Amino acid sequence: MVTAPFHVYDTTLRDGAQQEGMNLSVADKLAIAPLLDELGVGFIEGGWPGAIPKDTEFFRRAAKELELRNAVLAAFGSTRKAGTRAWDDPQVRALLDSEAPVVTLVSKSDVRHVERALRTTPDEGLAMIRDTVEFLVREGRRVVVDAEHFFDGYRFDAAFTTEAVRVAFEAGAEVVALCDTNGGMLPAWVSDTVGALRDTLGLVHGRDARDGDPLLGMHAHNDSGCAVANTLAAVDAGCAHVQGTVNGYGERTGNVDLVTVVANLALKSGIDTLAGDGLAEASRIAHAVAEITNISPYGRQPYVGASAFAHKAGLHASAIKIDPDLYQHIDPTAVGNDMRMLVSDMAGRASIELKGRELGFDLAGQGELLTRVTTRVKDAEARGYTFDAADASFELILREELTGERPHYFRIESWRTIVETTGDARNADRHDAEAVAEATVKLHAGGERIVVTGEGNGPVNALDQALRHALTRVYPAIEKFDLIDFKVRILDAEHGTDATTRVLVETSDGERSWSTVGVGPNIIEAAWEALIDAHVYGLVHAGVEAL
Amino acid sequence: MVTAPFHVYDTTLRDGAQQEGMNLSVADKLAIAPLLDELGVGFIEGGWPGAIPKDTEFFRRAAKELELRNAVLAAFGSTRKAGTRAWDDPQVRALLDSEAPVVTLVSKSDVRHVERALRTTPDEGLAMIRDTVEFLVREGRRVVVDAEHFFDGYRFDAAFTTEAVRVAFEAGAEVVALCDTNGGMLPAWVSDTVGALRDTLGLVHGRDARDGDPLLGMHAHNDSGCAVANTLAAVDAGCAHVQGTVNGYGERTGNVDLVTVVANLALKSGIDTLAGDGLAEASRIAHAVAEITNISPYGRQPYVGASAFAHKAGLHASAIKIDPDLYQHIDPTAVGNDMRMLVSDMAGRASIELKGRELGFDLAGQGELLTRVTTRVKDAEARGYTFDAADASFELILREELTGERPHYFRIESWRTIVETTGDARNADRHDAEAVAEATVKLHAGGERIVVTGEGNGPVNALDQALRHALTRVYPAIEKFDLIDFKVRILDAEHGTDATTRVLVETSDGERSWSTVGVGPNIIEAAWEALIDAHVYGLVHAGVEAL
Repeated sequence: MVTAPFHVYDTTLRDGAQQEGMNLSVADKLAIAPLLDELGVGFIEGGWPGAIPKDTEFFRRAAKELELRNAVLAAFGSTRKAGTRAWDDPQVRALLDSEAPVVTLVSKSDVRHVERALRTTPDEGLAMIRDTVEFLVREGRRVVVDAEHFFDGYRFDAAFTTEAVRVAFEAGAEVVALCDTNGGMLPAWVSDTVGALRDTLGLVHGRDARDGDPLLGMHAHNDSGCAVANTLAAVDAGCAHVQGTVNGYGERTGNVDLVTVVANLALKSGIDTLAGDGLAEASRIAHAVAEITNISPYGRQPYVGASAFAHKAGLHASAIKIDPDLYQHIDPTAVGNDMRMLVSDMAGRASIELKGRELGFDLAGQGELLTRVTTRVKDAEARGYTFDAADASFELILREELTGERPHYFRIESWRTIVETTGDARNADRHDAEAVAEATVKLHAGGERIVVTGEGNGPVNALDQALRHALTRVYPAIEKFDLIDFKVRILDAEHGTDATTRVLVETSDGERSWSTVGVGPNIIEAAWEALIDAHVYGLVHAGVEAL
Repeated sequence: MVTAPFHVYDTTLRDGAQQEGMNLSVADKLAIAPLLDELGVGFIEGGWPGAIPKDTEFFRRAAKELELRNAVLAAFGSTRKAGTRAWDDPQVRALLDSEAPVVTLVSKSDVRHVERALRTTPDEGLAMIRDTVEFLVREGRRVVVDAEHFFDGYRFDAAFTTEAVRVAFEAGAEVVALCDTNGGMLPAWVSDTVGALRDTLGLVHGRDARDGDPLLGMHAHNDSGCAVANTLAAVDAGCAHVQGTVNGYGERTGNVDLVTVVANLALKSGIDTLAGDGLAEASRIAHAVAEITNISPYGRQPYVGASAFAHKAGLHASAIKIDPDLYQHIDPTAVGNDMRMLVSDMAGRASIELKGRELGFDLAGQGELLTRVTTRVKDAEARGYTFDAADASFELILREELTGERPHYFRIESWRTIVETTGDARNADRHDAEAVAEATVKLHAGGERIVVTGEGNGPVNALDQALRHALTRVYPAIEKFDLIDFKVRILDAEHGTDATTRVLVETSDGERSWSTVGVGPNIIEAAWEALIDAHVYGLVHAGVEAL
């Protein structure tokens, strides 16, 4: 449908890296870039060579090591300093030296920033843009200009801000990206401003652009929670270049989530903007990027979040079975995601059946079994269990009802854990001397009686250590299991520490992870139950025979 | 500026509770409702009485226990079943029995759902709306109708969907909330649809509405990442009632984040929608709700997120110091948040000063003390403490810095706790035999060395029993203290049970309650710290002298 040029410009590696707590190494960036390329973006902004040594190194290695099929690399930098010449400015030369075919120049387009941050005159501010763009174009680079604080600047002094954009195009910029640097715009303001700018400069609408026409772009941040809508409003108003980051990484509330933008454009407005069919891989790619950045994925993220197509209400489950499209805004496979049914306290037989199918068990027509499982789940939930986030414990119940018994890998004789203080208190009344924990587990497996004591920095950690060591002798597969998350919830906490405790445990074998649940009046008992389920489920899925 | 009626309608306790992994107890709901009231919303939807037993109980207790200043309670339920009469439908009667002054009825407004999910005719579908609304209005209730799947329905069959809205108003509904149930709308579609509906039905624009005029409302989900913009577009197009949840909780990608909506309306469009000045407390309230739901706050959340006004040092650092307003879209104090980066500046000290005043300490002009407390609080928060929900622990820090030492009621020599299984296992592999806990505390108080062993159904309960019995001999006031709530949060849980644990404890003396916090690698140690603070604070406030 779209023949006009349209740029999807990813800045995960540059502006995304501004996010609090994110620290990308050169190797991280080299690992993320191919994922962005696979997604099908046209541009990958790699960093700021010359200003950040790691980024200089990234471009040096990228030129040799990366084989991009869809994207070209862009080097980000600033226009020349006030009172210098572009070709003399070492920071501008570093952009050339990066050998990136595209250079993106941040330029001040708000006159207040020219005067207060650059401490120069409006005329020199404009000359800095003109000179730097002209120089880089002469040197054979494609130039994008990021008009920083464009929207705030336009609202303060439209004439200067418009002139800053005009000058950039006149000097040969291929794109001027209009930046909502502070992220405070609303969609209606973006529409009006982009429309007015286009009229004043006589620019064609993005959908009518031909190769060589000057393009407007949008660079949005999410401070008013409208980054996606602002970007869509900008495209509607004539922009043909969108900047953003995977998972919406970025400073403060983040940059616009690029996957949400391109999914909305493709699936709702019929504007395909990615090369290839990367959109259908978007969920996997977004999670793979999160693995590299080591920032936990956000479950409620549109399109690619783990919860994005998860349904809880029992109310709808029977209707969903009949006609899933009435209950989801798109087909989740279009973005590589899945519909998931959550087993909750509103669960009925229909949602148990759907959940079973998801786990690979065909329960259709097994009415009696479904009733049994549904009753058992409801009973368990009334006692405080939750299976929303504990698929593995749910599957063990299902298997037990299907086969009549749980797999018997081991028999526990008893367990005990002790936490006590040692050493001298640093603060007499709190007694904040260190506490140490140990646990002893006695169990029978593979014909042996095994007694093991474990130590840990807390009672659950100590129990986990003891159980793991005891079982690994008989079932070496357990060596790969790793407890990766542990959540505690106190339920109906009206009696303080008399309350019921729910523990969720997430375990990984290095390739996949599974979640189990335990409940009890005693936090240690609840944790123990979840640990046991975690080991049994792991052994079943490792294909281990009970000894 | 706004004289027209405008409703802020919170559904955290009902639709928000559909979020994956969220499971609110009646006590949780009773604790969240006053926070919503403090924020200044007009309506609190408490749940679905009659369908969910916990929600029936919530309304029963809310009528007696909640004293709301700004909000009224709304009970959510469905229109009558097909082929019945409204007054005969037990689910409709349960709405009356809840005694909520407002009843919100979910109604099918997409003809496909009437036919495929309700399995009835379009005419009966409309009659179900008309009858149920008329009945409840006759019984003296204010009625809101949630037109489920409104936007998808309108795009499929505008005539039926429009009729469903018309019938609801004709029957006496005060509001019809237009629901983007599947969350897939874009702002332009919302604008067009709301405008067309208003024209067809001849409804006044929200800004021109007078008391008694029928109002349109908006209920948005965030599946296309546009929930906030969709809600703003609906208000622009004439809606005067917005539904949403604190922290954007909800099924799939969540409901619209109500705080972001009201902040945008107030701070960007000059439409004040909250009673009182709750917006200035929004960050604290949003975080307090997150403590109760036990769902980690999202750092990049607009307005209230921990990162929302956090600037990474670099490019802008020096310029921000000159003129912060050039680098942030609003003044963060307008939503009770802080710019982070201008280290230990007036903002931090000012809020410590305010908090001190709230607790009865006049710290004005005590610059050095304020700096000391601010530094100590920031250090503690970096290690995982939170004082948002632990005023009592904060007050002990303040008292210590004011007087140079903590009150010395007792000195702990050591403590120990043991949890072990007893009796026979009912299930061999889980060994779900009962576990018992005991704890021994050795301490010095009133010139005595006291050694007490306590039992409990968990290690914290046992420690609490032992500590309480040991201290009561010397300080009888402690007999009145009762541990009423206990919350555990695992922080930075990347190493499973190696993670840092935060425990919040709430203690009551029968008249008032106070909250304390403890943090440590070991859950028992963290709980111990919070228990000690709880006893010290309680003794100070009982006016007890240290012996």
